[in-house]
Amino acid sequence: MKNTDVQFKKIVIFGAGLIGGSFALALRRAHPEIEVVGFGRSLETLKLAKELNILDRIGEDTASEVGTSDMVLLATPVGKMGELMRKIAPFLTERTLVTDGGSTKCDVVSAAYENLGDKVSRFIPAHPIAGAELSGPEAARADLYIGKKVVLTPLPENSREDVLKVRKAWEACGANVSELTPEMHDEVFAAVSHLPHLLSFALVHDIAERKDKDLLLSFAASGFRDFTRIAASSPEMWRDICLANRAALLRELKGYADELYAIYQALEMSDAAKLENIFSIARDVRSNWNKH
Amino acid sequence: MKNTDVQFKKIVIFGAGLIGGSFALALRRAHPEIEVVGFGRSLETLKLAKELNILDRIGEDTASEVGTSDMVLLATPVGKMGELMRKIAPFLTERTLVTDGGSTKCDVVSAAYENLGDKVSRFIPAHPIAGAELSGPEAARADLYIGKKVVLTPLPENSREDVLKVRKAWEACGANVSELTPEMHDEVFAAVSHLPHLLSFALVHDIAERKDKDLLLSFAASGFRDFTRIAASSPEMWRDICLANRAALLRELKGYADELYAIYQALEMSDAAKLENIFSIARDVRSNWNKH
Repeated sequence: MKNTDVQFKKIVIFGAGLIGGSFALALRRAHPEIEVVGFGRSLETLKLAKELNILDRIGEDTASEVGTSDMVLLATPVGKMGELMRKIAPFLTERTLVTDGGSTKCDVVSAAYENLGDKVSRFIPAHPIAGAELSGPEAARADLYIGKKVVLTPLPENSREDVLKVRKAWEACGANVSELTPEMHDEVFAAVSHLPHLLSFALVHDIAERKDKDLLLSFAASGFRDFTRIAASSPEMWRDICLANRAALLRELKGYADELYAIYQALEMSDAAKLENIFSIARDVRSNWNKH
Repeated sequence: MKNTDVQFKKIVIFGAGLIGGSFALALRRAHPEIEVVGFGRSLETLKLAKELNILDRIGEDTASEVGTSDMVLLATPVGKMGELMRKIAPFLTERTLVTDGGSTKCDVVSAAYENLGDKVSRFIPAHPIAGAELSGPEAARADLYIGKKVVLTPLPENSREDVLKVRKAWEACGANVSELTPEMHDEVFAAVSHLPHLLSFALVHDIAERKDKDLLLSFAASGFRDFTRIAASSPEMWRDICLANRAALLRELKGYADELYAIYQALEMSDAAKLENIFSIARDVRSNWNKH
């Protein structure tokens, strides 16, 4: 049994959508005594989050709410986090830890150094890996993180004790927590998440621009359905993720283009053995994935 | 209500796996009086198919079985069909229609002209669009074709009456039947099926060849899972499909590489608006797909 004893009395979430809302619901299911205060850009969204029992209160004064909280979760788009950090930095004390729900980490970490100043030790970056085709408070669920991975990318300034506290909070939500450096995190997710999203968007866009797209789509079946499910993801969110993880993603795209070129050449030369070899290696790896 | 009255007394299937076996089970569920005789490369497979009630009998003499049947289904790998056609051609009369279950059509049609000679009018090419990650008689199901699309690609030599008979057979299996030219069929499936399979194999192969593949795969989540589901498909089958539809697939790969290059450039220049525009067009098309 994991020790999921979280000694928080109050948390503040910025952004009460899928990620922030689910964190609040999950943490409160484990610890009903925790008070949850929410901030966000849209009052309407915050009101909905309160109706859905995600929030106890809608925050009004950042200074007093952040200053009296045990944990702040930044669950806004990654592009907004720097600004938020600058806003909350003055009110961070030894009591308050900050974590986030961003899908990229190097950019968030660099925003933290830039905007949190000497409070950067309070920030323990996190990436909860949970589906993102849905968004908004309506999509939030207390069980979203159960069995899902959360990656922490601690900073040299963090104490192990503080990292452990943030780990316990995510574990209380049901997540399996692991740690990577921010750089390694971004490399890994460029390969297994960001690149596939880009490739899926690219395929659908390629078809969408054709005159006979309706004919093509009318014959698309289950292979297309699964391959392109992620192409229904939020364009704004994925624009930001791509830009935030630009360097690693450009490297991945380049590598993938080389891979495609090798396949193109094999097909052009009708090299049956080479095609079968590539497909076999892929099939074996895919079939054994997630079995262990 | 569709008229699914099939006036067949006996069918012969070459290949009693997923496609052929499911056709036999489905047709016989609608018309229990139809006799099913099976041929195949492996006696073991045929015995299993007989145990599973896919076949009434295992065929021994091609001449007498084909000559007394109303329909022959070629449900072998596409690469084997030319040889089979040459073998059955002498025994085809006005009584017997031939159809197939191949995923590509131009190559099968050209094999038909080459091997069926003046019996080519008896052949009505078909492509049942049903999942293919599984194979063998164990995977065959009477309901496999219910609600699925089957594309016929009739030849100028076919009579409308014969095309209608084959259409009714597939409709009796529960399928929605439509017609395309063989060329149009291959263009369409290169775009919506063959290319996505190739891209999915390529992504997994790209990862499989890396030293840190286990680390990468340990963080892969639901986006990766769906994007790569088709990379667990049969390497031999997809090798043959790629080679059979080589020309159209090379054009698709080239177009896709151009699309990726445009995205690469947009990302390199941090062109947020262009990325969002591409993602939005894709998201809209994907979200509206299959709703009508």
